[in-house]
Amino acid sequence: MNIYFAASIRGGRDDWASYLEIVKQLRDYGNVLTEHVGDVELSAVGEDLGDDKIHDRDLGWLRDADYLVAEVTTPSLGVGYEIGKATEWGKPVLCLYRPTEGRKLSGMIAGCGGVSLREYQTTRELHEVFAEFLGIHQLRSAVNQP
Amino acid sequence: MNIYFAASIRGGRDDWASYLEIVKQLRDYGNVLTEHVGDVELSAVGEDLGDDKIHDRDLGWLRDADYLVAEVTTPSLGVGYEIGKATEWGKPVLCLYRPTEGRKLSGMIAGCGGVSLREYQTTRELHEVFAEFLGIHQLRSAVNQP
Repeated sequence: MNIYFAASIRGGRDDWASYLEIVKQLRDYGNVLTEHVGDVELSAVGEDLGDDKIHDRDLGWLRDADYLVAEVTTPSLGVGYEIGKATEWGKPVLCLYRPTEGRKLSGMIAGCGGVSLREYQTTRELHEVFAEFLGIHQLRSAVNQP
Repeated sequence: MNIYFAASIRGGRDDWASYLEIVKQLRDYGNVLTEHVGDVELSAVGEDLGDDKIHDRDLGWLRDADYLVAEVTTPSLGVGYEIGKATEWGKPVLCLYRPTEGRKLSGMIAGCGGVSLREYQTTRELHEVFAEFLGIHQLRSAVNQP
């Protein structure tokens, strides 16, 4: 299974440690196409690559992905853009949100029928969430294979 | 012409005065479907309406729009989501960005071939930008009409 993990880069890197832990957990379920999102070396300036190259490479990965997992606590244009594309393409989308005092998740994400939304406080809680979503997906793929 | 104006709501309302001025300028070119985005009364908590209702109403407006104009200075999941949908649907998209020290626009927006990106410092500069993009669009529509 190919998993596209989306999280804020230029929107802010406050949560990079959570992103790294999420990437580690996702690796139990398949190939994480965007492992660099959890990289401590990756700053809010982003990668040293032309924007059009980043866009086309990432969108290619998203097309190849069986699943989009998006961390949506830090507002990010790129993550929103990818959720818009993935839901349009009929891909399953799991959004992870850590509620914070005085903030509210975007209505376009919270109200999107094509998105499964799970709130969490620590990444430890995500083992169960991934088992529910990605474990079942793995099981289905195995059953459907000859 | 129907214009969908997108800008940050729950991502942060620091720039609401610019949004209001943009809505005022856009009204010269057509019907602005999302005038409330420039409303001073609209806080970062957003509208008092269910998220699924907000999502479905806004996506309906976006489908009806001839043009998406998005202010992308403040990172926003909803704005990114709408740009993702609009580019997928082949709608013309104009993104307005005010460069700020130490920040960089999302690579997914800056590198998206379906987006026309214009940088600005004050909303006064936008008269010319809108005349270029929306004026020509108006002209084309008039020529194509019987």
